[in-house]
Amino acid sequence: MSLVLPTYADVVSAAATLKGIAHRTPVVTSATADRATRARLYFKCENLQRMGAFKFRGAFNAISNLTPDERRNGVLTFSSGNHAQAIALAGKLLGVKTTIIMPLDAPAAKKAATQGYGATIVNYDRYTEDRDAIGRRMQQETGMTLIPPYDHLHVIAGQGTAAMELFEDVGELDYLLVCLGGGGLLAGSALAAGALSPSCKVFGVEPEAGNDGQQSLRKGEVVTIAPPRSIADGALTPYLGQLTFGVIRQRVTDILTVTDPQLVATMKFFAERLKLVVEPTGCLGAAAALQGTLAFPEGARVGVILSGGNVDLAAYAGFLTQP
Amino acid sequence: MSLVLPTYADVVSAAATLKGIAHRTPVVTSATADRATRARLYFKCENLQRMGAFKFRGAFNAISNLTPDERRNGVLTFSSGNHAQAIALAGKLLGVKTTIIMPLDAPAAKKAATQGYGATIVNYDRYTEDRDAIGRRMQQETGMTLIPPYDHLHVIAGQGTAAMELFEDVGELDYLLVCLGGGGLLAGSALAAGALSPSCKVFGVEPEAGNDGQQSLRKGEVVTIAPPRSIADGALTPYLGQLTFGVIRQRVTDILTVTDPQLVATMKFFAERLKLVVEPTGCLGAAAALQGTLAFPEGARVGVILSGGNVDLAAYAGFLTQP
Repeated sequence: MSLVLPTYADVVSAAATLKGIAHRTPVVTSATADRATRARLYFKCENLQRMGAFKFRGAFNAISNLTPDERRNGVLTFSSGNHAQAIALAGKLLGVKTTIIMPLDAPAAKKAATQGYGATIVNYDRYTEDRDAIGRRMQQETGMTLIPPYDHLHVIAGQGTAAMELFEDVGELDYLLVCLGGGGLLAGSALAAGALSPSCKVFGVEPEAGNDGQQSLRKGEVVTIAPPRSIADGALTPYLGQLTFGVIRQRVTDILTVTDPQLVATMKFFAERLKLVVEPTGCLGAAAALQGTLAFPEGARVGVILSGGNVDLAAYAGFLTQP
Repeated sequence: MSLVLPTYADVVSAAATLKGIAHRTPVVTSATADRATRARLYFKCENLQRMGAFKFRGAFNAISNLTPDERRNGVLTFSSGNHAQAIALAGKLLGVKTTIIMPLDAPAAKKAATQGYGATIVNYDRYTEDRDAIGRRMQQETGMTLIPPYDHLHVIAGQGTAAMELFEDVGELDYLLVCLGGGGLLAGSALAAGALSPSCKVFGVEPEAGNDGQQSLRKGEVVTIAPPRSIADGALTPYLGQLTFGVIRQRVTDILTVTDPQLVATMKFFAERLKLVVEPTGCLGAAAALQGTLAFPEGARVGVILSGGNVDLAAYAGFLTQP
C-alpha cells in the first residue's frame, strides 16, 4: 500500500479553513527561561486554544473536509481526551453528530467537557482492549466516519497550523520542540518548519516511560510498546501512525524523552513564572528545553509548542505541591 | 492644599514611556463566560505583564520621571507585594537602587521575587505599624525618593495604560470592572475610559471585608477602616489615596464588593477554562462579573482587568482544591 503523506500545501489549506474559527494563540517569552537556557525561547500557547488544546485545529479541519453524506452519518473517534473534546466541539460547530471511544481512566475534566459539547461517549479499557479494533468495528456497524486522533492527513495538516503561526509571528527558528504522542502535532509542525524555516531542527519529545517514537525513529520503522504509564496522559500512545511516522522519519532531527518529575518541575515553572496552566503532556517540549535534556548554543532561537492545558484541578493542585 | 489630579494626557505620556518595555498583554475571551453572563467579556491579562502584574507600568513610569539626582539617591517604597516587585524590577532596568518596606505576612513568592530583582527589603507589621509613617521617616533619613504604591501621579498614569490598550484593542465598552486596593489601577483606568470610551460605566471591585472604597465613594470623602483580612492580599489597603479618590469620585460609577469564596470560584474558573493563573486580588473584577454581583443587559460589552498572577503555589493549590 502506498501512503499519500500530507504536505505543506495541506497545512496552508487547513489554515484557510481554520481562519477566524481557531484562536490565533499568543506566543509568550520569559526572561527567566532565557537566562536559564542562554537561548531565546518562544512558547506557542496552544493551551489557550479553543477547548484548551491544539487538537481543535486538526479535528475541525478533518470534519470540514467530509462530504455532505459523511457529515450526515456522523463522526466517530477514539481519544485519551483532547482529541475527543476537539471532535465534539468541531462537530457541534459544524452540525455533525459525534461519538467518542474513550479510555476508562481518562481525566474526569476531559470526559465532562466532551459530554458538555454534546458528544456520545463509549468507554474502553486502555490496558486490555485495542481501541483501533473497537473503532473499526463500530464504524462498520454504524456507517459513521472514523476520524482517528493523529494518523489522518487532514488532522496532521490542521495541527501544523500552530507551528505555521509561530513561524509567521516570530520568524525563522534554530530549534522547534514539539510533544509527541501519536505524532500528529510533530508531523504537522515539521511540515510547517520545512517550508517556513528550512534550517530549523525539529525535535519530538515524549515521556521516558513511552519512548516508542524514539525507538521507531532510530530503528527506521514503527515500533509498538506496551501501554506506558506517565502523567503525560496525552502521549500514552503505544505506536506512531503510518502517516505521522512517514513525515517524522523524513523531517525530524531526533526524538528526546523527559521524566515525570521533569514535567512536574516544568508545570510549576509555567504556573509560577508565566501564569499559565499547562497540562503534563503540554510540558513535554518545554521540559526538554528547561530541564537540560537538550543544550542550545548561546543565543539560539527556540520554539516550543505548549500543546494544551486540560488537567483536573485536583490533580493539578497535587502537581503544584510536589517538592 | 490643592491637589493636581492626573489626566488622560498623563496616561498618554506614560504609554510612550512604557512602549517596548512593558508587555502589551493579550485580551482573552471565553464562550463559557459569555454564555453564563449573556454578555461579551474581554479579559485584559495583566497577570501576563512583566513581574506578573500591572504594577510594573506605574513603577517604571514613576522612576522614569525622576531627575538624575533623584535617581542617584535611590527609591524607597512600601507595598504588600506586587508594587514592591514592580519597583525592584523597574529600578533594576533603569539602574536605580531600590528599598522596599514590606509587611511581614506578604506572600513568600513575592518577597523572593523582589529580592531576586536586587531590592533591599525592610519588614513591618501590617496590623500594628503605619507603613506611611515608616516610609516618611526612612525617606527623611536617607534622601531616597518615596514612590508610594498608588497615590502618585505617574503611578496612576502608568496603571492607566492597561485600560488604554484594552480600549485600543477591542474598541468602546459598556462596562469596565477593575479591582480596587488603593485605587491606582481604578483611577488610571477611569481616565482611559473617559477619553476612549466616554459612555463606559467604570466599576471598582474590592473585597467585602475591606470596603473602604465603597464607603468612601458613598460618603464623598476618604474613609479609613481597620486593616481588613481577605485572600485578596493586594487589596488590603485601609484607605484610598487623595489623588486616586479625587479621580475615582469624578469618574467611577460605583464600587462593588465580592467575598473570598467568590474569589476562589473565579480563580478555579480561570485555571480550568482559560488556563490562566490569576491571583486572588486579580480575580476581584472578574468575580463581580461571573458570580452575579453585577448583572448586565444582554449583549453588553464588558472589559475586566485581571490585575496579576503572583500567588504562592502552595496557597494556589489550596484554593484550587476548595469545594
